[in-house]
Amino acid sequence: VAAGDSARLAALLEQLHPADIADLLEQVDSGRRREILLMGGRQFDGEVLSELAEGLREEVIAFLPPDVLAEAVRDLESDDVVDLIEDLEQPQQEAILDALEVADRVAVEQALGYPDYSAGRLMQREVVRAPEHWTVGETIDHLRAHKKSLPDQFYHVIVVDPGIRPVGYVTLGKLLASKRSVRLTALLEDSFRTIPVTQPESEVAYAFNQYHLISAPVVDEGGRLVGVITIDDAMNVLDEEHEEDILRLAGVGEESLTDNVLDIARGRFPWLVVNVVTAILASVVIAQFEEVIAQIVALAVLMPIVASMGGNAGTQSLTVAVRALATKNLTASNMWRVIRREALAGLLNGFAFAVIMGVVAVIWFGKPMIGVVIALAMVVTLMAAAVGGIVIPILLERLKVDPALASGPFVTTVTDIVGFFVFLGIATMVLL
Amino acid sequence: VAAGDSARLAALLEQLHPADIADLLEQVDSGRRREILLMGGRQFDGEVLSELAEGLREEVIAFLPPDVLAEAVRDLESDDVVDLIEDLEQPQQEAILDALEVADRVAVEQALGYPDYSAGRLMQREVVRAPEHWTVGETIDHLRAHKKSLPDQFYHVIVVDPGIRPVGYVTLGKLLASKRSVRLTALLEDSFRTIPVTQPESEVAYAFNQYHLISAPVVDEGGRLVGVITIDDAMNVLDEEHEEDILRLAGVGEESLTDNVLDIARGRFPWLVVNVVTAILASVVIAQFEEVIAQIVALAVLMPIVASMGGNAGTQSLTVAVRALATKNLTASNMWRVIRREALAGLLNGFAFAVIMGVVAVIWFGKPMIGVVIALAMVVTLMAAAVGGIVIPILLERLKVDPALASGPFVTTVTDIVGFFVFLGIATMVLL
Repeated sequence: VAAGDSARLAALLEQLHPADIADLLEQVDSGRRREILLMGGRQFDGEVLSELAEGLREEVIAFLPPDVLAEAVRDLESDDVVDLIEDLEQPQQEAILDALEVADRVAVEQALGYPDYSAGRLMQREVVRAPEHWTVGETIDHLRAHKKSLPDQFYHVIVVDPGIRPVGYVTLGKLLASKRSVRLTALLEDSFRTIPVTQPESEVAYAFNQYHLISAPVVDEGGRLVGVITIDDAMNVLDEEHEEDILRLAGVGEESLTDNVLDIARGRFPWLVVNVVTAILASVVIAQFEEVIAQIVALAVLMPIVASMGGNAGTQSLTVAVRALATKNLTASNMWRVIRREALAGLLNGFAFAVIMGVVAVIWFGKPMIGVVIALAMVVTLMAAAVGGIVIPILLERLKVDPALASGPFVTTVTDIVGFFVFLGIATMVLL
Repeated sequence: VAAGDSARLAALLEQLHPADIADLLEQVDSGRRREILLMGGRQFDGEVLSELAEGLREEVIAFLPPDVLAEAVRDLESDDVVDLIEDLEQPQQEAILDALEVADRVAVEQALGYPDYSAGRLMQREVVRAPEHWTVGETIDHLRAHKKSLPDQFYHVIVVDPGIRPVGYVTLGKLLASKRSVRLTALLEDSFRTIPVTQPESEVAYAFNQYHLISAPVVDEGGRLVGVITIDDAMNVLDEEHEEDILRLAGVGEESLTDNVLDIARGRFPWLVVNVVTAILASVVIAQFEEVIAQIVALAVLMPIVASMGGNAGTQSLTVAVRALATKNLTASNMWRVIRREALAGLLNGFAFAVIMGVVAVIWFGKPMIGVVIALAMVVTLMAAAVGGIVIPILLERLKVDPALASGPFVTTVTDIVGFFVFLGIATMVLL
């Protein structure tokens, strides 16, 4: 690449899947990215744009000459175009919309009319449907006659009533394996679900995952067929949601490897602010016990162990709780059982670490009472961490706050404050 | 349910999807679960077993009368049976294998011969294939003639050479829309990937996600077609891997809501042991500075803030790094750029919180020098946390250790030790 050997580069890129080209573009720096794009000359595969990380799309679109861009987006399916342009700035959006054929442009603009992150944004409008009274033969003839306008990938023929309301669907496998004279209604699948066009995409992904759907018809308020969502779209959503959950649990906002330093620092700042506030709260607790610390400095030495153990135990149980809530496995019906189980598990590990830390403290400082103090603090703190780690996410969920985002700081605050208070409080009572 | 109204319950369960029945069984306690199962009487849907959490399968299988169980598993596809029995104990495995028809039993036993978590375990052996020289018409006639033995779901016809080596595949959509006289070889998809039977399932899932595959042929070492993996299997794997990643990052082993208290406590214990060791290491650092703490107790009050901020900043950058490694977005070619970016972002936030904590400390304790000490400690600790958070996962990956599992304790140790050492070290120099 460095040598500027554009012919060889073009030949190399030719062999790569668009997703791999996108990955390649994401990994080089901005100047190199520009070089590669310009070397490509007149041809640029629209799918590379779709595969690109959102943060980079604007940059790449700005690099491309308008006519190359127009050519690139014209080959995309309507759902990919929607996905591509929904996060772009107004002028870039316009440029791409102008490049589309009229019918596609209308389709894309209608899709953009649906709420963000709804089924309407996710679906493709190219649908393969057939009226109820058709036979297999009629359906096959229809498909052969409209070969050009069929979507690239489709897995079912959706059977609709005269009002274009879906009544079921037939898998292509059954269609192929049945005689021409068989009626479509005889081949309908047992399980059939329609998706309302305004349903949030997270629920769409849940349904695909739970019911092993491959594709599902999308209907408007009147029950009329308006599009279809396929499993690859659902898989994408699932992937993004998981990513988001992991990052949220760690207090990182939407961040990608292609963001610049300022964006990164700014994205992480709010969580650190929350954390500094909770840490100061914990310090205020410590400040109440300055007297005992001044007399027995060993307490200052051991104190962080209590906080650290509480924080980790809390994170364990909150992560399990957040995941169980996200997968709808933790509900009102098993809530109390799960909380009781967490409390008992916390108590068990509390006793275990009470023994371990008690022995360590006695050996280290030679004072049995310090061992007793840290042992008691361990039991209470680990139990509080386990219970807090499950109760706080459940409460947040009830209050309609995303538990993945907000549980961390609350749980840490609880474990820190309980930990310091119990440890230093017991120390004051026992040692002074 | 409580009333034991078994007829109504049966009617209710009838309407539910197997996945929902499994969820229901997971949410009630063991006694209730048994009641529901026994009420079902002679009929039990094998798919419910497939959908059930792994921890519960043994229990449920033990509840079911052998003949009901045999009936239930006979309807499953071979890949589902493999998934069902691979984690069972020997006697239960035998019982299920005995219930299968001979051909299915052989298929399942062959699959179990492949390594755990390999493509061979994941694939279904029911394959729809056609020789290269066939036309669309011949293929359709063949499918119609073998209607009974076709898999429930298939999306491609795999075209093979005379040695049964896949040369490409044709989507059912294209097959349906083309004239009977067209040759299959004229309809082959551009992108076509085969999966080696020994490939780890995580790489299979990655390929499905990256290349938007719907199904992919699995081949043995000789390149011969031995099975096919479909997207729903890949989606499952992806889902499990994500779950595992999230739990591992929090130091929770494989844990499910159905585990009992002892299993849970035992599963979380090892991580807490690692944490207690690292916490003690940090305390040893503090112990070196007992003298300065005894003289200025304010240091003991502020100390946990430094550790807490370092821990959180470290977790942020390590989570981003672990995700980027898992999605193969962080590679040797962009490593240095990403590390530099993390260091700068850490420095920026370090300065921000140096100002914030410096001001807070001066106001709180009225001593300007304490403000200076904590400000300097913030800069160094946040920068160390950002760099440690990215360098440690990269090193672990190089050493073939799963960064999701092991990064946490290392990063916390680094931030704690650096934080305490810098804060108390500077305090000793400046204040004593």
